[in-house]
Amino acid sequence: MNFSIDDLPVRDELRGKSPYGAPQLDVPVRLNTNENPYPLPEALVERITERVREAARDLNRYPDRDAVELRTKLAEYLTETTGHAVDVRSVWAANGSNEVIQQLLQAFGGPGRTAIGFEPSYSMHSLIARGTGTGWISGPRHDDFTIDVPAAERAVAEHRPDVVFITTPNNPTGNAVPAETVLALYEAAQAAKPSMVVVDEAYVEFSHGASLLPLLEGRPHLVVSRTMSKAFGAAGLRLGYLAAHPAVVDAVQLVRLPYHLSAVTQATALAALEHTGTLLKYVEQLKAERDRLVAELRAIGYEVTESDANFVQFGRFADAHATWQKILDRGVLVRDNGVPGWLRVTAGTPAENDAFLDAVRELKKEQEQSG
Amino acid sequence: MNFSIDDLPVRDELRGKSPYGAPQLDVPVRLNTNENPYPLPEALVERITERVREAARDLNRYPDRDAVELRTKLAEYLTETTGHAVDVRSVWAANGSNEVIQQLLQAFGGPGRTAIGFEPSYSMHSLIARGTGTGWISGPRHDDFTIDVPAAERAVAEHRPDVVFITTPNNPTGNAVPAETVLALYEAAQAAKPSMVVVDEAYVEFSHGASLLPLLEGRPHLVVSRTMSKAFGAAGLRLGYLAAHPAVVDAVQLVRLPYHLSAVTQATALAALEHTGTLLKYVEQLKAERDRLVAELRAIGYEVTESDANFVQFGRFADAHATWQKILDRGVLVRDNGVPGWLRVTAGTPAENDAFLDAVRELKKEQEQSG
Repeated sequence: MNFSIDDLPVRDELRGKSPYGAPQLDVPVRLNTNENPYPLPEALVERITERVREAARDLNRYPDRDAVELRTKLAEYLTETTGHAVDVRSVWAANGSNEVIQQLLQAFGGPGRTAIGFEPSYSMHSLIARGTGTGWISGPRHDDFTIDVPAAERAVAEHRPDVVFITTPNNPTGNAVPAETVLALYEAAQAAKPSMVVVDEAYVEFSHGASLLPLLEGRPHLVVSRTMSKAFGAAGLRLGYLAAHPAVVDAVQLVRLPYHLSAVTQATALAALEHTGTLLKYVEQLKAERDRLVAELRAIGYEVTESDANFVQFGRFADAHATWQKILDRGVLVRDNGVPGWLRVTAGTPAENDAFLDAVRELKKEQEQSG
Repeated sequence: MNFSIDDLPVRDELRGKSPYGAPQLDVPVRLNTNENPYPLPEALVERITERVREAARDLNRYPDRDAVELRTKLAEYLTETTGHAVDVRSVWAANGSNEVIQQLLQAFGGPGRTAIGFEPSYSMHSLIARGTGTGWISGPRHDDFTIDVPAAERAVAEHRPDVVFITTPNNPTGNAVPAETVLALYEAAQAAKPSMVVVDEAYVEFSHGASLLPLLEGRPHLVVSRTMSKAFGAAGLRLGYLAAHPAVVDAVQLVRLPYHLSAVTQATALAALEHTGTLLKYVEQLKAERDRLVAELRAIGYEVTESDANFVQFGRFADAHATWQKILDRGVLVRDNGVPGWLRVTAGTPAENDAFLDAVRELKKEQEQSG
């Protein structure tokens, strides 16, 4: 039977769509998905196996539905690294920040409600909005990819969204959003209607500046989402979390799938949280490499967006996708996020970054010779 | 600030609701969540740590987004245990069968669409429907908890649901649904409109009869969902999966969160699939214990619903919740699923089942003395 997805009664808005995800190509240097290039230290690998062995002996039982030990340790990590006291009741964890965002939209968005993001930004925000039946509003940015605050405030006043997404540092552009901008948008959102403001800090550990976590104080409609995928070097773990008023945690518990977080995921995350000191040293190395990428790309003659993340947006290209292919032909996979004129490169190891810089240096020369 | 969930802009249908989940009480004998009482064999625990160690060394990278190795092994397991050849392209896996069902409803249900289940049944079907904005229709059963086929066909014809759930063996009642009933409802559903029929076989390994997987042949709107929580003794792992036409797998890939299944979950599940022989021997022990529970409960004088699962529904009680409490007072936790007059007990180890039987034998005596 020659039967395809088109013959199935899928929802209309899914027809003709493709699954989200960067191309997974077998290339020597992969700098396309903002992964941390440093494998976990062997001592942590051993600690993970110890904790998973323990969890496996009880695997016939359901995991702790509320992940209390894990949330306690995440709260301690946030308190120690931001100086803002966070309590276990203010923290929630799920399978990647994607699931955190999905739960937030199930509780506060959904059918008949809308969410706004300022684009280009993390494209899963709009995709998860679609997946949860939440209407999506694309808010404005300046040409330099900073948020156009007056225009954003007008968009919020006009559309009265139920959920406002602010990604800082922003992905794929790399720039951080000032606290004043977040505060202005929080005020604008509350003036329009009682709505939730979600600050996505997936990359905040790589920032020159500080986390916006302290803004949670006295702002029960604010949520800060985080992930262990980047700074913790644990993209394979799928552990996202949020900090917010305990009432927000109560709300997502109404929509979370029961026992959503496996015992092995909880055990592995707990092991990683015992090694934050080592992992944050890798972050320092990556920040230095990120700054080197910015400086070298500018020296070569590219435009570069200010970066507070573990990646750098560079351009401009008349045909970004053609340039992406030319870099790929030189054995380096970067990301074409669909921002016209721009590409994104993840900060890798020094050797990987050298390979990337060699490739784009060559391209620049070719271009100058033919130009 | 005395701020609670009631002060947040949560969706109206969530107001006043409580999170799903059985009470987690610290009691000597817990027979309330249909867990497998047998811990994984030590050889499997060691194999899990080996595979997780390997996965942890690559944890800085995203997991295989499509979980191809895991789906291949799940397909082999289904082929070997049902005799129906299943291909990797026909299998999909997620964090528990709850996430499988959520993805199915995101693709085929959602706002403006409806799903039907025949209640009492697995209550997450209706809860996930609510969470995905899918309208819910409660279909009928006979007093003996078998599906009233003519009434069910009429309900399908009248409501024209987009998704039909059939749980077999049914939870919490325990009885299996005959293939003819599934076929009749599949035909009725297709006659009403192109719709998906989801057969939830979470407990099928405990059944006296065979899996309905072979019905997939030539029925591209049929889905069979499964879990490793019960027969594999791995409730803590959170691994659910489905078998269906490859087009259905294509459809859920449009709504799945990217990289939803962590590398440690995939590694642990793969280890468990290497030990199916041992694990299925535990299933045989549990089936014998389940049959013993049915026989003993009847001998004591209780009514018992036919069971093809690893649990038994027994009654009848004028006040089921009061009886639940009396059994709990004797150190045994069973489940009050809200079915008036009935309680559910999970088949535990022989010693656990003895403790349960002693408790309900005592209760019966008390009742007879006072009655």
